[in-house]
Amino acid sequence: MFKAEIKSETLKGLVNIISTLIDEVKFAITPEGMTLKAVDPAHVAMIELRIGAKAFESYSADGTELGLDLDKVKTVIKLAGPGDIVAMEQDEENGRFVFRIGNVTRSMNLVETSSMSDPKVPQLTLSASAVMQVEQLQRGIKAAESISDHISIRAGPEEFELSCEGDTDKASLKLAGADLESLDSPAEVQSLFPLDYFANILKAIPSGTKIRVELDKDFPVKLVFELAGGEAKVVYFLAPRIEND
Amino acid sequence: MFKAEIKSETLKGLVNIISTLIDEVKFAITPEGMTLKAVDPAHVAMIELRIGAKAFESYSADGTELGLDLDKVKTVIKLAGPGDIVAMEQDEENGRFVFRIGNVTRSMNLVETSSMSDPKVPQLTLSASAVMQVEQLQRGIKAAESISDHISIRAGPEEFELSCEGDTDKASLKLAGADLESLDSPAEVQSLFPLDYFANILKAIPSGTKIRVELDKDFPVKLVFELAGGEAKVVYFLAPRIEND
Amino acid sequence: MFKAEIKSETLKGLVNIISTLIDEVKFAITPEGMTLKAVDPAHVAMIELRIGAKAFESYSADGTELGLDLDKVKTVIKLAGPGDIVAMEQDEENGRFVFRIGNVTRSMNLVETSSMSDPKVPQLTLSASAVMQVEQLQRGIKAAESISDHISIRAGPEEFELSCEGDTDKASLKLAGADLESLDSPAEVQSLFPLDYFANILKAIPSGTKIRVELDKDFPVKLVFELAGGEAKVVYFLAPRIEND
Repeated sequence: MFKAEIKSETLKGLVNIISTLIDEVKFAITPEGMTLKAVDPAHVAMIELRIGAKAFESYSADGTELGLDLDKVKTVIKLAGPGDIVAMEQDEENGRFVFRIGNVTRSMNLVETSSMSDPKVPQLTLSASAVMQVEQLQRGIKAAESISDHISIRAGPEEFELSCEGDTDKASLKLAGADLESLDSPAEVQSLFPLDYFANILKAIPSGTKIRVELDKDFPVKLVFELAGGEAKVVYFLAPRIEND
Repeated sequence: MFKAEIKSETLKGLVNIISTLIDEVKFAITPEGMTLKAVDPAHVAMIELRIGAKAFESYSADGTELGLDLDKVKTVIKLAGPGDIVAMEQDEENGRFVFRIGNVTRSMNLVETSSMSDPKVPQLTLSASAVMQVEQLQRGIKAAESISDHISIRAGPEEFELSCEGDTDKASLKLAGADLESLDSPAEVQSLFPLDYFANILKAIPSGTKIRVELDKDFPVKLVFELAGGEAKVVYFLAPRIEND
Repeated sequence: MFKAEIKSETLKGLVNIISTLIDEVKFAITPEGMTLKAVDPAHVAMIELRIGAKAFESYSADGTELGLDLDKVKTVIKLAGPGDIVAMEQDEENGRFVFRIGNVTRSMNLVETSSMSDPKVPQLTLSASAVMQVEQLQRGIKAAESISDHISIRAGPEEFELSCEGDTDKASLKLAGADLESLDSPAEVQSLFPLDYFANILKAIPSGTKIRVELDKDFPVKLVFELAGGEAKVVYFLAPRIEND
């Protein structure tokens, strides 16, 4: 059983983040909230999303699983205006999921979840950690675009840097001092990542969001941030491109 | 002879409605106003538009006929800003139609009307009638898109419904009580219509317009609404898709 | 040596004008400012742009030459918000040009200028001259589009006209009296020009700019206007299409 109401903006923010990675998703439902763990088809990135019951205007659920096609959920969100409440309900009898926005009802078949994997979230201890407003990273990404397919992330005791180097062009964003909320990187660490994945997830994060970046040499980068006024927590891993020395 | 001035917004509103059906049109002109009757090339929909002289800022005409290419008229409208007056004049000597907006003059050949048909507007008495704000129907259309090629319109004593059903998805808009300005449908009637035609005409109707929908089982649906502050009257018929029982 | 700071809006305005003609450009640099002379690849139009040191927030330079790829400069400008200052510096050692906007650094190889020609700006005395707001011409261009590939510019003692004639359509903009800041055309002169070139340069000129049009029979038209609050001066020549009588 699952029945909940959510602000259309909150639903949109959550769907935007997940759909940077995959279209068909499986939510694990409990009375306390929803959890999603997913990897992209190329197994380069992983997302873990925990949405607490308080992220919803109303929420009541038993333990269950829900498979949804996010492309369809997006068309539903477009029917809602700002401030609208989206009511959602599982129709167990017919294997459907039903959305209601005002006098519009939109239902869709639930997606079969039996073939969807349950990725294991890695427990990594990364040596460097920096916290900043997401707008800072978004500007760095914009500067890097069309220069190279890869972006270097580097952290040191005094400075955090995104940089990108092509045959004729270079771009770099250096954050230090007041640009950062915090920086904890005893040693210099640096890794290279696919720019498109990094850009897609950063562009989907709303302005004003604080993001923690955890980094180590030739390890995945870990991004941690909150949505829905702190009631939804996202952890995102992106695999490094190992450079041949 | 035809010579008139019209607000650019009014002209735009009229052209938008007509051009959902056809590009080349014939207007019948009298001293009291203009009339257009047209069917789309596939003979699925028909429009009758009566524009009274009062819809214009100034109007003077004899009985005549004017053939216009609406695609070209649209490019003229784009030259006008909001609040601009568009002056129009038939140049009988050269077989041209002349638009003037401020210090810009734009003239185009009149379109040959001899081959254009004069469709006969059907006189139908349909058993159900409902009046509502067009925004209500526009939301229903938006919910139905990408689910199916057809939309069902249903009216009953208590409720008016648009609905759409595909293999895996359903959408429905139910209007009752305060959602409707009026509803007069003694019995339940329902018909199926091509979604694209219905969507195109509804999207062209400006927000804030009141629309009357007349319906019967397996008859065309009739839409009646006004433009130009009540000085232009539109009747639109859309043929049903007859379902095989 | 070249080192300067400029408002992002000013830089954008200058780049927009030049890039209507060419992508790779050579600036001649002096302590007093920058000069660019360029013709388009088809040798139909020529631009001369003189940017005084006062167009910049700060400016310090020796005599030198800088070759830049404007497509890349445009991507840099997109990193700047309104009101942002763009710092620019020549990195002579590495043959690079470096932009800085806040904490973002973007560098690119300088373009080889040795093969770029130094076009000679023609000294023409044209018999007609008219001054107007650029918006007037922009509306005339918009009316002419999709009618013909050529536009006629005509000046007479009382009137200035842009006009365009196709097989079935005509458009004309007539400026007289208060539409013009000034008009000095003792005789009637008229020439025909390629519409796309004329449209591209006019669309790149910011609203509120005063433009002087100098004209003669079957001579290039000369457009003169200022950017950057009067600190940058543009002269643009466009070759006529000679009509066979």
